[in-house]
Order: sequence, then C-alpha cells, then structure tokens
Amino acid sequence: MRANPTDQSTRTVSFEQLTELLRRIFVAHGTSAEVADVLAENCASAQRDGSHSHGIFRIPGYLSSLASGWVDGKAVPLVEDVGAAFVRADAGGGFAQPALKAARALLIDKARSAGIAILAIRNSHHFAALWPDVEPFAEQGLVALSMVNSMTCVVPHGARQPLFGTNPIAFAAPRAGGAPIVFDLATSAIAHGDVQIAAREGRLLPAGMGVDCAGQPTEDPRAILEDGALLPFGGHKGSALSMMVELLAAGLTGGNFSFEFDWSKHPGAQTPWTGQLLIVIDPDKGSGQSFAQRSEELVRQLHGAGQERLPGDRRYSERARSMAHGISIALADLERLQALAGH
Amino acid sequence: MRANPTDQSTRTVSFEQLTELLRRIFVAHGTSAEVADVLAENCASAQRDGSHSHGIFRIPGYLSSLASGWVDGKAVPLVEDVGAAFVRADAGGGFAQPALKAARALLIDKARSAGIAILAIRNSHHFAALWPDVEPFAEQGLVALSMVNSMTCVVPHGARQPLFGTNPIAFAAPRAGGAPIVFDLATSAIAHGDVQIAAREGRLLPAGMGVDCAGQPTEDPRAILEDGALLPFGGHKGSALSMMVELLAAGLTGGNFSFEFDWSKHPGAQTPWTGQLLIVIDPDKGSGQSFAQRSEELVRQLHGAGQERLPGDRRYSERARSMAHGISIALADLERLQALAGH
Repeated sequence: MRANPTDQSTRTVSFEQLTELLRRIFVAHGTSAEVADVLAENCASAQRDGSHSHGIFRIPGYLSSLASGWVDGKAVPLVEDVGAAFVRADAGGGFAQPALKAARALLIDKARSAGIAILAIRNSHHFAALWPDVEPFAEQGLVALSMVNSMTCVVPHGARQPLFGTNPIAFAAPRAGGAPIVFDLATSAIAHGDVQIAAREGRLLPAGMGVDCAGQPTEDPRAILEDGALLPFGGHKGSALSMMVELLAAGLTGGNFSFEFDWSKHPGAQTPWTGQLLIVIDPDKGSGQSFAQRSEELVRQLHGAGQERLPGDRRYSERARSMAHGISIALADLERLQALAGH
Repeated sequence: MRANPTDQSTRTVSFEQLTELLRRIFVAHGTSAEVADVLAENCASAQRDGSHSHGIFRIPGYLSSLASGWVDGKAVPLVEDVGAAFVRADAGGGFAQPALKAARALLIDKARSAGIAILAIRNSHHFAALWPDVEPFAEQGLVALSMVNSMTCVVPHGARQPLFGTNPIAFAAPRAGGAPIVFDLATSAIAHGDVQIAAREGRLLPAGMGVDCAGQPTEDPRAILEDGALLPFGGHKGSALSMMVELLAAGLTGGNFSFEFDWSKHPGAQTPWTGQLLIVIDPDKGSGQSFAQRSEELVRQLHGAGQERLPGDRRYSERARSMAHGISIALADLERLQALAGH
C-alpha cells in the first residue's frame, strides 16, 4: 500500500464500499466468507477512524501471511462453555476476531447473568487494532478489558534481549452523554505499526522508543525493525504490564507466548500466533447507581481539569468525518486494492 | 515515626512482635479488635518486606485519621452476593482490608466455580500497599488483579489541574517454581508515600515526577506536597490507566472518585474514602494446561533474557531476611510505637 509520491491524487470511498472491497480481497486470497466479513469490517473501521497503522496498510501483511500457509483463513472457531462466567475459544489457527464473534453472545449472556465473564482465546492470530474488540461491549452498556500478546520485539526492563510482544491493553466503558470511553495502548513505547509507517515514510522516531541490533538506543525505525527491538513504555511499570499481558493472553489461555512460535518454515508469515483475553463486566451490579452516569461525571470533571481530548475522541471525530464525507484514500492505494480484489 | 538523626541505634523485632505491637496501637486508638488484626498484619508485612512507604511510616496517618472521626475503625463490612461471579461489599466507612477479608471466602468460591469473580468494595478507606491484597490469592493458585483510587493529586495527561489519585494497580499470579509473581504499581510517576519519605529525608526527586502549585515541573518533594501535584507515569498511557482505575475502583463500585470526598470538616484526616475493585480468576480453566507451569516457563525465559529481578523479588528477599534475622527498626521509632501502644 505504498502511495506513489509523484501522484498525490486521492479518491473518496464510503465505509460500505471500502468494507466490500476488502471483503472481496480476503475471499480472493483464501479466507472463508465468514472470516472475510469480520476482517474487512475491522480493517475498514480502522481506516475510517484514522487508525492508519491498522487500516489498509495491513492488507499486504494479511495476504502475505495467508499465502504462506501460516494462518488458516478458513478456520472455524470452537467455543467451549467451561463455567458460569468462563468461555474458552480455540481459534483453530485462524484469526482471533472470528473466534470473538463466535463467542460474543455467550460471553455477553454470562456477563449479564453472573456479573462478570471471561473469554480465553487460544491458537489465534491477531493482526489488528484492539479497540474494535472492546468498543461494541461498551455500546451495550458493558465494561470490557482485553489483552493480546504478539511476537518478540520488546526488551523487558532490565533485560538484555527482547522477549515480549507489543502486548496492547484495550478498555471500553459506556458513558451516558456520549460515545464510549475507549483506549487501546501498546505496552511498548510505540506500536509496531507506527514504527513500520515511520520507516516507510523515512521519518526518525522520538528518543526512548527502541534499540538497534547491538542493544543501543536508536531513533532510526529501520534499525529497530532490522534485528533491533522496542522498549516498554514507562520503564519497569510498562514492562510489568507487558508481562501481565503475556501471562493472561498466553499463559492463561493456552496460546503461545510471544517468543514461542516459529514461523521460519512459512516465509512471508507476519501474523503473530498467540492468544487473547477478554473480561466483560456488567457495571451496574457494582452499586445501586447507573455506571454510565458516573462515568459521564468523570468525563465532565476531566474536561473541567483541562483535558480536552479523551482517549478515543480522535477516532470518533475521524469517524464522523469519514461517515459524512467518505474515506479519503490515495488513488494508487485504491488501485492496488482493486487489483488485489481481482478486477 | 521520625528517626532521631543523632541516635542511629536500632532494635530488632520479630514479625509477630511487630504485628502485636501495631495491633495494640490500633486498638488503643479506636479500632475494633478485628480491624486491628487486619491492619496490623498488613502494616507489619509491608515493614517486613522493605515496603517502607507503607510500613510503620503510615501509623501516624492512620491514627490521625482515626482521631479526626473521618474513618470508622469499628465499621463492620456488609457483604452482598449479587451474582454467580459478583460480590459487593460496603465497608461502612471503615477500612477496605476488613471488607476484603469478610468477602474473601465467597469471592474465592465464586472464582473457582464460575472461573472468574469480581469484588466491588465501596465506602472504604485504603491507606496501605495494594500487593498484600492480591498476593494471597496467587498463593492459592488463583490470578488476582486489583485497583484502588485514592485522592486528587495527579494531573491527567493534557490537563491543567490534578484530578486522579495515585491509583495503583496490583497483580498476582502463581508460579510452579517459586513464590507468586506480584506487582503493585502506582499509575502516578511516583507513589505518594515515596514523595513523603523524600520530603522527610530532604532529598530531591528525579525529574518528571511532579509539578509545583503553579503547575511548573519541580524536583522538590515539598513543593509537590504543598499544593503541587504528581504526573502520571508514561504520559498519556499511564494517564489512561489511571482513568480506568477511577472508573473501575470508584465508578463501578459506587465508591467516591478521588476528587469527590471532602474531608475539610475532619482536620487530620489522611485516609482516602473511595472504593476498590478485585478480579480473581481460576487460570486453569483457560486451557488444559497448568497455568503455574506456564508462568514458570515465562520466568525462566525472563531470566534467560537477562532480567535478573522479577517484580516482587526484592520484597521476597527482604521478607526472607526479616523472617530469619528479625525486622530492624530505629530505636526512636520503636519507642514511639511503644508509647502509642500505651506502655
């Protein structure tokens, strides 16, 4: 998806058009219709919301991984009910998002009846942003927390070698007066996708994001991508949270730790084969009060303290613009997508 | 608990002796025997483990708050069973730890049967470290996560005024080959207790920890304590996590947000009157494997990558030394404690 620097012309597509185009691309490259539906909506949502590191930029990686035979685009997830508040899903070597979709109704039922419920997804590939996995729960009045581990590229605090993935944590909570409060943060100092975009654009990174192959600090994104590594955000605290993500998203689910899978026999593989954890809470069971009114009060106070932009706000404003005026895509990118869709 | 700088002599007491001494102090200052038992063990454990900002250093704050009438040292917590995986506790304006103790058996039963369970404590005062609340669950093979909000002293990222508390997150997980993996991290750049200790000792802080009353960065702990404020750790990411703690520990439980309580009518009050959330998971439900074996593998890999000290390791080594050789306390501090106990 490299825009031709001599051709800056762009085209505008609707969210539905982009979703349909991506759906056709996935099907043309070996996924089932069901998997294509889920991935296309996820990827188009990221593009719509200005989440460019997880938008159409990711399509070549998806297709490369599918072509390598590393990920099964036709996997059918197996959902297991293992307790009043515990759901397990085996993604069957396919993507995590179809496993979440297959388990979602049961997970929500359990959260509403038991008060909290957990979904442990294993044997899954996650190559997308994490906020699309939690936001829909908040739209239904539930609180959701998710973690996914990825692939070795982060040096634990105090260690010499990389071990953790970028290991994001995403959280979503409903509020009475607006769209849900949603954040999605990599526990690395920077998201891997943002390093890739900086490398593509020839930009340097801020200091403190990563090290080169000799373990020395570097601001060159290519040096980080070529046998270098990222650092955790916030020193030992971010490192502890990244460790927690390994323990919960992989150790607890039965998925691979970020350092456990070997894709060397699958040249072109790019999608981490790990696990994912979701926790969903019915917040109104916590007290007699409406949670959404309470979270609205917190938002009001945050604005009063001078925090103008809440986590998620930038995505919502980009989304509103995209829905009103369409999603702007470089012509070269759009033509490449159309070629991938086979026409 | 100010050590006389001209008298450096120390005394050694056993964990049991210190616990008993603290228990007598609490009872002598208006708590019930039950509350005294819980607080004394908690505080003595912190001192034993080298967690000095939450050890005997905290006793004057506890007693000042009790004397002010702000916290009820004789409160009897009310535990409510509100779902297959949801427990609620009203701490009755007393301390959070007795409420956790009262709810613990029910919480563990639910976690083991449902797979995950949540405890929402409200109307509670938490003035201690958070790791003692989660570590015992991991000793029983469970994974535990807890959050507690505190009192306005942290400026949200991008805001002008403080709003959040130091809002710690603690996590504990069992491992097969050793003591549980436990961390307890303030979402502020530094714990409030550590600012107080630096101020007491006349030390400057590292840069980036806080601001003075004019909102300007400062390294002077007294300037932070006197109408200044702390910053979140890790910029916007730590700030997002601190917001999550407000939403879960207060918004969801029905406790006060860190900015909601007004103790101005209780001069001497020091204990934040908020809420606390605990989530407890039976990790072996996540897959067919033993979680403790998996977490042990992660520890082995962390050591292999060069991370010599895991979160919690320093506490365990201090604990072992204290149990073998006793807890060393400045004579002046010990005499002050004995006087507070009334003999």
